[in-house]
Amino acid sequence: MMTRPATQPISRFPVPALASLPEDVRARILAVQEKSGFVPNVFLALAHRPDEFRAFFAYHDALMEKEGGLTKAEREMIVVATSGANACQYCVVAHGAILRIRAKNPHVADQVAINYRKADITPRQKAMLDFAFKVALEAQTIGDADYATLRDHGFTEADAWDIGAIAAFFALSNRLANMASMRPNDEFYLLGRLPKAG
Amino acid sequence: MMTRPATQPISRFPVPALASLPEDVRARILAVQEKSGFVPNVFLALAHRPDEFRAFFAYHDALMEKEGGLTKAEREMIVVATSGANACQYCVVAHGAILRIRAKNPHVADQVAINYRKADITPRQKAMLDFAFKVALEAQTIGDADYATLRDHGFTEADAWDIGAIAAFFALSNRLANMASMRPNDEFYLLGRLPKAG
Amino acid sequence: MMTRPATQPISRFPVPALASLPEDVRARILAVQEKSGFVPNVFLALAHRPDEFRAFFAYHDALMEKEGGLTKAEREMIVVATSGANACQYCVVAHGAILRIRAKNPHVADQVAINYRKADITPRQKAMLDFAFKVALEAQTIGDADYATLRDHGFTEADAWDIGAIAAFFALSNRLANMASMRPNDEFYLLGRLPKAG
Amino acid sequence: MMTRPATQPISRFPVPALASLPEDVRARILAVQEKSGFVPNVFLALAHRPDEFRAFFAYHDALMEKEGGLTKAEREMIVVATSGANACQYCVVAHGAILRIRAKNPHVADQVAINYRKADITPRQKAMLDFAFKVALEAQTIGDADYATLRDHGFTEADAWDIGAIAAFFALSNRLANMASMRPNDEFYLLGRLPKAG
Amino acid sequence: MMTRPATQPISRFPVPALASLPEDVRARILAVQEKSGFVPNVFLALAHRPDEFRAFFAYHDALMEKEGGLTKAEREMIVVATSGANACQYCVVAHGAILRIRAKNPHVADQVAINYRKADITPRQKAMLDFAFKVALEAQTIGDADYATLRDHGFTEADAWDIGAIAAFFALSNRLANMASMRPNDEFYLLGRLPKAG
Amino acid sequence: MMTRPATQPISRFPVPALASLPEDVRARILAVQEKSGFVPNVFLALAHRPDEFRAFFAYHDALMEKEGGLTKAEREMIVVATSGANACQYCVVAHGAILRIRAKNPHVADQVAINYRKADITPRQKAMLDFAFKVALEAQTIGDADYATLRDHGFTEADAWDIGAIAAFFALSNRLANMASMRPNDEFYLLGRLPKAG
Repeated sequence: MMTRPATQPISRFPVPALASLPEDVRARILAVQEKSGFVPNVFLALAHRPDEFRAFFAYHDALMEKEGGLTKAEREMIVVATSGANACQYCVVAHGAILRIRAKNPHVADQVAINYRKADITPRQKAMLDFAFKVALEAQTIGDADYATLRDHGFTEADAWDIGAIAAFFALSNRLANMASMRPNDEFYLLGRLPKAG
Repeated sequence: MMTRPATQPISRFPVPALASLPEDVRARILAVQEKSGFVPNVFLALAHRPDEFRAFFAYHDALMEKEGGLTKAEREMIVVATSGANACQYCVVAHGAILRIRAKNPHVADQVAINYRKADITPRQKAMLDFAFKVALEAQTIGDADYATLRDHGFTEADAWDIGAIAAFFALSNRLANMASMRPNDEFYLLGRLPKAG
Repeated sequence: MMTRPATQPISRFPVPALASLPEDVRARILAVQEKSGFVPNVFLALAHRPDEFRAFFAYHDALMEKEGGLTKAEREMIVVATSGANACQYCVVAHGAILRIRAKNPHVADQVAINYRKADITPRQKAMLDFAFKVALEAQTIGDADYATLRDHGFTEADAWDIGAIAAFFALSNRLANMASMRPNDEFYLLGRLPKAG
Repeated sequence: MMTRPATQPISRFPVPALASLPEDVRARILAVQEKSGFVPNVFLALAHRPDEFRAFFAYHDALMEKEGGLTKAEREMIVVATSGANACQYCVVAHGAILRIRAKNPHVADQVAINYRKADITPRQKAMLDFAFKVALEAQTIGDADYATLRDHGFTEADAWDIGAIAAFFALSNRLANMASMRPNDEFYLLGRLPKAG
Repeated sequence: MMTRPATQPISRFPVPALASLPEDVRARILAVQEKSGFVPNVFLALAHRPDEFRAFFAYHDALMEKEGGLTKAEREMIVVATSGANACQYCVVAHGAILRIRAKNPHVADQVAINYRKADITPRQKAMLDFAFKVALEAQTIGDADYATLRDHGFTEADAWDIGAIAAFFALSNRLANMASMRPNDEFYLLGRLPKAG
Repeated sequence: MMTRPATQPISRFPVPALASLPEDVRARILAVQEKSGFVPNVFLALAHRPDEFRAFFAYHDALMEKEGGLTKAEREMIVVATSGANACQYCVVAHGAILRIRAKNPHVADQVAINYRKADITPRQKAMLDFAFKVALEAQTIGDADYATLRDHGFTEADAWDIGAIAAFFALSNRLANMASMRPNDEFYLLGRLPKAG
């Protein structure tokens, strides 16, 4: 009933052949393939626009690939929760896998994607996601009280920026994925769900 | 970081001991345990109100446990999609597992829970979920045009009732689960995701 | 200008003849007719699905036909207020009549159907309806603070369940009535409005 | 349980004594009392601002007290339907009474206050209320297509203005009544409900 | 690309010739032209309905043309902020000009039209606009706490009425302008922006 | 009343001294100052995060600084319209100035910021902004019909990407500006409003 054709499109927009790409774009794609064992479709779906591709991944890495007041798992938690609120299938499925792996927890991604208020996370993490939701859904109303709540939970000013900037960056990412009908790779669905893989 | 205490509550409300339950309620619970290998928490979370328990599961079975114009997988699809729209963690996780099993498809539940418009389903199934969403989110605006669209996709009058009644029943179920902070069993997360289990 | 044909449909879906119904369903309908003097249309509109009919009314009675921390009038108040929020004409008109009778108050139903915040009810009843509205409209955000407010107004844990479960059950009922264009009986409009009838 | 003190306030704001009012304002109030048998509370609640009082009722009468492409009953229908959407208890109760009387129909007010789409009105009247709802709730999106639909139902340009202007005027009126917690007179609830009064 | 025809319509509805208007309406229009140097289009767009014209401007003047607890600039601030929330181009452009002139501030109108929470205004003015937004967008939820907040900022009961009544009046005005596609005069865009004009 | 202190903060977050910045960041800032005569505050507000600064402006330029199916003025129109919908004061004021200059039109920015449906733009531009609004506000519902409408107005696939990607990028930008309370430079307000400057 729900079988898929062998080669379903991963985007409404053109997906160029690897060979046709600028050298640095191709290198980035080969590197992620080397590391992950497959090429996440977002790399292919953005490759038709090399300048936007470069900026997108530079921005992504600047926000997601560092430690700090937020752990890498917490950064992914922000992505999965706000992408759920934005109904972005690609980001929930792909970053859900990364969250499971980084948190070494097979359940937390499904929980925060649907309702972080009921997830097995700490009160501090719920405060983090309250702020991220406000940035994602009604940023125009953010005010002093929101920052005070973050401080009460021990977040620094730099942490507050990180939380908000990640929610803001995925506001962009979710919209690109939804407008392009970007398709998550089959590999993501099971990643981090099995004891050994976790 | 996100470890759970050994015995996290499965509901804000009382969960009675099996031995204290009326015979028919206990029998129903033991039967589902026998069949599934565990007791889905919704059975325990509703047992403190035996009359409501009996009515809830009688209603559930009347809608979900029959074939007809809609397959059992399609019925579960309605549950998972509308429960996602209502941010109901219990229903998405538990019925997501049932949907994977009934559809023999490890990906479809995660897809429809987040955005059925991007899922690997047929146009007829998308029309089915359009109608279910309208019942779930703005039933007061349903009119002749909505029924005409269903007919154009081959749904009978009885099918239309089934689609709407399932969405309406889970409007109830989602609200109970959210108000009680009902916790999905750990077993659901992986069910139907592995080739053999599918 | 707004005259109605003699026999306007009471539902978009089939309404079976009494004689064709299972014995228990027919008996239930005759009993309500005996008691009320007419058959509320919801009984006829659900009769085409006997199993759903039985479950629906069993659930209804389990929630509405008992005393406890909430009076019967307060239970009806929850129905009328949340059905107003869901724009459900059948439930507002039919349960508005029951509320007027049970509260012995000819005005309260019209008040809570439109805006319970301005109704002649107690602060405790407003807190009850605040909670019911949250269950009806955004159950996913319910948390500890909502239960604390109920406790501050003297509601027990069992009362909290009752309030939420009634709102949840009518989330179902309102959706069925709206999808079926269920028509309230003419009798309901005037019931409980006249001094003697109150 | 829901008894009211003998003299419940009819507004959060000052209600001046009749004797203290400017002559024309007092005369207007006495005239409506003469005609209706009581003074609708809106007259008293606005009297503390004589200039606003004069402008309000002049505007009201300019829109409501004339015939034309819309009957007086249809004008009241617009008031009741949009006031329901704005959860304005005063306007629904008071103009519901006037609608029942003008339409000689004891049921139509309760129907359009909750969900005009299910009311016993003509398709032309539903189109009228579709337009009124758009003015009431999302006037910024009104465009050519909305006017074309009105024309298709036989409404002239002057009728379109009337429909929109009435919905716009009660956007003002509903907000005043809600901010002032304006209380409908007890007399309104039963008016037009009994065969003789109709 | 965006050039306009020489005579773009200022309303979807008829705009009568000055000579055809009742004497008092024409006098009012000539007076505003004398004072402002041009006739704001709203005067022409409402002139086809003399009675509504008279009531509209009488109401407007009763609210806007007086001093009191609110300065005239603050009254215009309420207009611009709520008209922005209602996406009313005519009112934002026309009253934005008046606000710039009355506040002797070339920036404040653009600020409050988009997001008053970020504007260069005092905390007391933000509280005033919080209340005005609640009247504009969700008047049915206004309660004691909202009035208490106004009092905490030093507003009297009369001030509270003024704030709410202005927001309510422009709920009407915004809807008329949007339904009529009322066009702001070119003159408004630059008024109050230059040092000398301020 | 609304005077500002001499040095109002341009962001809630740290604004580093120019001398402390990495060479390329400083060079970029000096270049824009050279070109514009002042440094738009967004450059200073993002400078505390050099990697994010670089990615942000690279992305911005990739989308905004090219011609193609969309003119530069049309690109700015998308920014101003969607930033208005997101209540982002910085982006409306700053890009409003750029739009006025690029379109050589002193009115269009104020028009599209409040309600593009009433702006002096072509039907093709309205279709462009309809699509941009859908990306900004409900990207999860975008489907085939939306792309078909763009094609009907002569937009290519590459144009569709540009429209959506600009709306998506400013979904990020608006959220950063709102969370940081980023303050537009005074210079922007008047730019492009005077005949000579246009």
